Amino acid sequence: MKPIRFPAPASSPLRYTRTALHFRFPQRTPAWHRTFFVSRPLLAFQTPPKSKKPAAMTSTATTLKGQPLEKPILESMLRRRMFYTPSFEIYGGVGGLYDYGPPGCALQANIVDTWRKHFILEEDMLEVDCTVLTPHEVLKTSGHVEKFADWMCKDPKNGDIMRADHFVEAVLEARLKGDKEARGQKVEEKEQDPKKKKKKSAKSEAVKLDDAVVQEYEEVLAKIDNYDGPALGELIKKYDLKNPETDVLPTEPVAFNLMFQTSIGPSSNLAGYLRPETAQGQFLNFAKLLEFNQSGMPFASASIGKSYRNEISPRAGLLRVREFLMAEIEHFVDPDGGKKHPRFQEVEHIELVLLDKDTQLSGKTTTRKLTIGEAVKTGLVDNETLGYFLARIHLFLEKIGVDMSKMRFRQHMANEMAHYACDCWDAELFTSSGWVECVGCADRSAYDLTVHANKTGAPLVVRESLAEPLVIEEWQVIIDKKKFGPLFKKDAKLVETALLANNQEQLEKLSKELADAGKFTLDVEGIANNKAEITQDSVKIEFRKRIENTREFTPNVIEPSFGIGRILYSLIEHNFWTRASDGGDESRGVLSFPPPIAPTKVLLVPLSSNAQFKPALKKLSQRLRSLGISSRVDDSSASIGKRYSRNDELGTPLGITVDFQTLQDNTLTLRDRDSTTQVRADEDKIVDAIKALVDGSKKWADVEAELPKFEGQEVEIASR
Amino acid sequence: MKPIRFPAPASSPLRYTRTALHFRFPQRTPAWHRTFFVSRPLLAFQTPPKSKKPAAMTSTATTLKGQPLEKPILESMLRRRMFYTPSFEIYGGVGGLYDYGPPGCALQANIVDTWRKHFILEEDMLEVDCTVLTPHEVLKTSGHVEKFADWMCKDPKNGDIMRADHFVEAVLEARLKGDKEARGQKVEEKEQDPKKKKKKSAKSEAVKLDDAVVQEYEEVLAKIDNYDGPALGELIKKYDLKNPETDVLPTEPVAFNLMFQTSIGPSSNLAGYLRPETAQGQFLNFAKLLEFNQSGMPFASASIGKSYRNEISPRAGLLRVREFLMAEIEHFVDPDGGKKHPRFQEVEHIELVLLDKDTQLSGKTTTRKLTIGEAVKTGLVDNETLGYFLARIHLFLEKIGVDMSKMRFRQHMANEMAHYACDCWDAELFTSSGWVECVGCADRSAYDLTVHANKTGAPLVVRESLAEPLVIEEWQVIIDKKKFGPLFKKDAKLVETALLANNQEQLEKLSKELADAGKFTLDVEGIANNKAEITQDSVKIEFRKRIENTREFTPNVIEPSFGIGRILYSLIEHNFWTRASDGGDESRGVLSFPPPIAPTKVLLVPLSSNAQFKPALKKLSQRLRSLGISSRVDDSSASIGKRYSRNDELGTPLGITVDFQTLQDNTLTLRDRDSTTQVRADEDKIVDAIKALVDGSKKWADVEAELPKFEGQEVEIASR
Repeated sequence: MKPIRFPAPASSPLRYTRTALHFRFPQRTPAWHRTFFVSRPLLAFQTPPKSKKPAAMTSTATTLKGQPLEKPILESMLRRRMFYTPSFEIYGGVGGLYDYGPPGCALQANIVDTWRKHFILEEDMLEVDCTVLTPHEVLKTSGHVEKFADWMCKDPKNGDIMRADHFVEAVLEARLKGDKEARGQKVEEKEQDPKKKKKKSAKSEAVKLDDAVVQEYEEVLAKIDNYDGPALGELIKKYDLKNPETDVLPTEPVAFNLMFQTSIGPSSNLAGYLRPETAQGQFLNFAKLLEFNQSGMPFASASIGKSYRNEISPRAGLLRVREFLMAEIEHFVDPDGGKKHPRFQEVEHIELVLLDKDTQLSGKTTTRKLTIGEAVKTGLVDNETLGYFLARIHLFLEKIGVDMSKMRFRQHMANEMAHYACDCWDAELFTSSGWVECVGCADRSAYDLTVHANKTGAPLVVRESLAEPLVIEEWQVIIDKKKFGPLFKKDAKLVETALLANNQEQLEKLSKELADAGKFTLDVEGIANNKAEITQDSVKIEFRKRIENTREFTPNVIEPSFGIGRILYSLIEHNFWTRASDGGDESRGVLSFPPPIAPTKVLLVPLSSNAQFKPALKKLSQRLRSLGISSRVDDSSASIGKRYSRNDELGTPLGITVDFQTLQDNTLTLRDRDSTTQVRADEDKIVDAIKALVDGSKKWADVEAELPKFEGQEVEIASR
Repeated sequence: MKPIRFPAPASSPLRYTRTALHFRFPQRTPAWHRTFFVSRPLLAFQTPPKSKKPAAMTSTATTLKGQPLEKPILESMLRRRMFYTPSFEIYGGVGGLYDYGPPGCALQANIVDTWRKHFILEEDMLEVDCTVLTPHEVLKTSGHVEKFADWMCKDPKNGDIMRADHFVEAVLEARLKGDKEARGQKVEEKEQDPKKKKKKSAKSEAVKLDDAVVQEYEEVLAKIDNYDGPALGELIKKYDLKNPETDVLPTEPVAFNLMFQTSIGPSSNLAGYLRPETAQGQFLNFAKLLEFNQSGMPFASASIGKSYRNEISPRAGLLRVREFLMAEIEHFVDPDGGKKHPRFQEVEHIELVLLDKDTQLSGKTTTRKLTIGEAVKTGLVDNETLGYFLARIHLFLEKIGVDMSKMRFRQHMANEMAHYACDCWDAELFTSSGWVECVGCADRSAYDLTVHANKTGAPLVVRESLAEPLVIEEWQVIIDKKKFGPLFKKDAKLVETALLANNQEQLEKLSKELADAGKFTLDVEGIANNKAEITQDSVKIEFRKRIENTREFTPNVIEPSFGIGRILYSLIEHNFWTRASDGGDESRGVLSFPPPIAPTKVLLVPLSSNAQFKPALKKLSQRLRSLGISSRVDDSSASIGKRYSRNDELGTPLGITVDFQTLQDNTLTLRDRDSTTQVRADEDKIVDAIKALVDGSKKWADVEAELPKFEGQEVEIASR
């Protein structure tokens, strides 16, 4: 491995502005790769809410039932139920790498499956599966080699490497917290990485600051994402920001490229990277996809796959990881004609919660609700195609069970956007880590296709027959090859190229020279004297008519880009609550996933582990399986209540109890996870009810109204 | 990147025997990573069949209809229809990397979906999704760092790097071919990589060899997989095997580790690799999975994900790639009690085609057909659990549409297997590249869990309560800690460890010494003099009874391991044919995938691109979508016949024509891809028929018998 140069020399080609990376990076930094604590600086100093305000209005996360979200309780539950777990834990683990256990894996598969149906199948998108391994040349062209980087600094005493912006943020926040303590104000405890607990972190000391200093720090924090490396270095010096662990100043920030490097083939001469996004593979296949689509426009490609980012110091669990699943759409559209979308009228009535750029620039985070039809009409959202996808993203998040009161679309401010992009919105979900960017939706113009076409010469364009041919009048060069060739011999090609490189204005001038003098002198690099004499014997320049039957253009790209892991984690928080809200046990967690998303749909519980229940259980699970409904038997010796509790934590929406009466009359009890109420009926009716609940055609209230209620059996567990 | 050392010094720690890598590698080389041309040397010299023998008997691949398989025709079709395409082609491509286009991607998704239902859901397996990035330490323990390698040699003149075994094979085969030509025998042309055509390859010259030499070469080729690097080097010298491109001998073969290396984190001190298999992540999570399974045994985990192998010189398209999708199952079973499987009786009647090791050792490839029940009973297949999975693999391959006359299970020979494994079988599919290993199924004993437990100290074991407590009588050491501690002070722990390390025999002896002399001297490394005097004041050694209530064991692992890309490619070959077999056009290819596997289920064809057909098409595709049936509209201006032809090549099993009559009476024609016959009925009946065909409950013949036949409209296309 090539050691990372550290510190990079001041003249290193890696130097660039942070703004260029995060907000003006002229290439596709996926939205969720940017700082996600967008409004955390605004939220961090507020006190927790006293009443159950709607979540979007509060500064701390709540459960589905509006309880304050106790993250340690949730995390211990997720660990216990193996939703996810640190990778290689028995070897001590590796930061930013997580494995999904069975429920996490099933949850992920169901989200991806819903995504595929909602986007790819619904819209006939062309799904591709491209390789993760990507040669250097491709990512050089796309701009990633030069600019896909973060600023890091190093503690010269203990050698710790830190992200420069995170470091500045942490020290300033600690000082502000100390000031609040000194002023006797209530301070909200920020969660900490349990591993770091032993370390001396940016601990606050109760030191009162001048009012002006407090304001200065708060202003710096509010625009922390706008500082580049040198600016962060200046902040460190200006405010004397020492590492609390060692009491020394860290080094000057240097750029660290976030791509994992490797080498392809045995001779190790082909440098490569693990892709930081799935999009490049889609762009490179554009010409083939267009042909596959029988040249039809507009069309979209889509890809679901892993991408990689070598985070400097990953934290925040699934929200910032080094290996992650993405789902990306590249919708190719004709830039002419206002980027209309043929299905826009299907969604124009949908109301979205929007936080526009002007509001943000005025230092506020007030959202407004309006239909996407209105938003496009008033120009708030740039065009129909972008608006169409915002609405479709909204519908997707709603479908999988996101708490829509904790969701907003935030528009990028001018300085956040790539210079060529005309509009970009992030779908953000509110969690215990603040607002998290989970989906980005940007109009990327023709940038990507253009740079790859320029580099490779591949025609990444659309050729469209014109309904009416275009008549073009222009200066044209007519070469008499029979004379021209023998005249210039081996230089003929170079002379011809130089001649044709002239623009209309120049051609008009040359035509005049040719008419007046019968010849002119042309600058031609690479031939003797770098000059060639052109005479009217072999070349004519005339103003002529030309008929164009086709139009050629490079499509623009609208890119909705999803971070599946972030959506999955936010979804867990949004659907979590504890039985305490029903007056029950606080330690009894519930994950109220909608049935289509739930990892397992039905829990089958025999009254006991008695062998006589086994045939009925087997028959039932086979019947459910044939309907495509996943079930799991729990015939452990734990009480029925305990077994149901376990599955409430796993998010299993339905439970069936098989008891002695089942063996006599084939009736079953069916339990609803959320209400814990039960109904009892014969197997056919119960299976019909399950089918309707799982495919969403019925709610539990409908089933309760139709089938006889059942009381008893489930015992509340006082303690586990 | 660290440059690959080349050539490695003779004393390099990388030196090992090739046998150890490929066949005795004491760790999990996935089956399809080994040479897959298993019996090609035996087949390569046979002439093509003269009649339509069953495929398994022939030496060349055939289409579904028994036509000789013209690989160039198939490949050009797969390219044209974008099943797969070289990655980064506009940048010149990278060997061994392929992207899947829309039909390949859908085919892959359907295979994976069927796999997940057939294995994971059917058997309640615990699916996990572990990271590809893997730290050095893990793969060091598993043996991959040291031994996951191939032998390569280099042409000193042109710098080409070649796999040593492939090089020897190619040159010897060329000589044998030249000999045949000289003898006037018919020679079968081997397919070539089209890119290599320009190069001077191992071209045969018509030179007659001695009969003895021919026999010697054939013997070498038959056991080519048994030579290690040095042995291959000797063959090169002995037979003077020069590179035909340069006419010089290649260098001595050196080992090349096949894992892609990278570095994790900013300080680049954590070396890592891209995993070469998904299995290690499953082993490392064993303890958590066991707990998740509420300590129930046996159980299986499963994982579907990408793995990576830095092939020296990839060829053969999708059959040997550097990035590939795997699906692996790790079934954990108690090693005691004969590894019975509770569901074995469900499969014991299933007949499998088996090629056992004894037959192979006698130089033959004759298969025999017998039930898995018999195979296990007679000991041919080692145990029920292994047998159960062989049968389940057979059923899976049959379900997705493999031509079962081109499938066999080949048993590993003793020298192919890891020393601890008791049995291993590969499911091989016959293709134009010979027999291809597509699934491996091995009994891996307790190796993996043991090495990771030894390295990390994690208890990767099962603790089982015993129904009847076990009474154990044994020599026990009783230490009086109050006296022992003060006596040995800081050495006490070391002395105690050394004392307890004695086995029963030694303890008996020490007990006697203690009784006789009142003391004995113990060797203790790390203390003064490396000796300690043990007296009866502080230590007793007595023969005592002990009651064991639990039993602790390390489970054995049965591992079915699937190469999805290889299965996908073989499946394409098995389902390909051309209309020439019906007396039609040879250039009209068909892919007869079973409907559940087909990329798209229904093609919707309007009579013309007339706008009045659009509402009917939209309604129909929405109706099909709501039934989970994927469809695609082709409203291009091509003739109906041409549009159907295109979709025959895409493997779309059904087609619906919407014409003017449809607009009047809502009737539709339904076309069957394979027979091209059509029926006509009203929409409800047609949709019901499609549903039954797609879920497999009806065949086309059933539909034809029920619904009125329709003639006309589809025109045979003479030429395209």
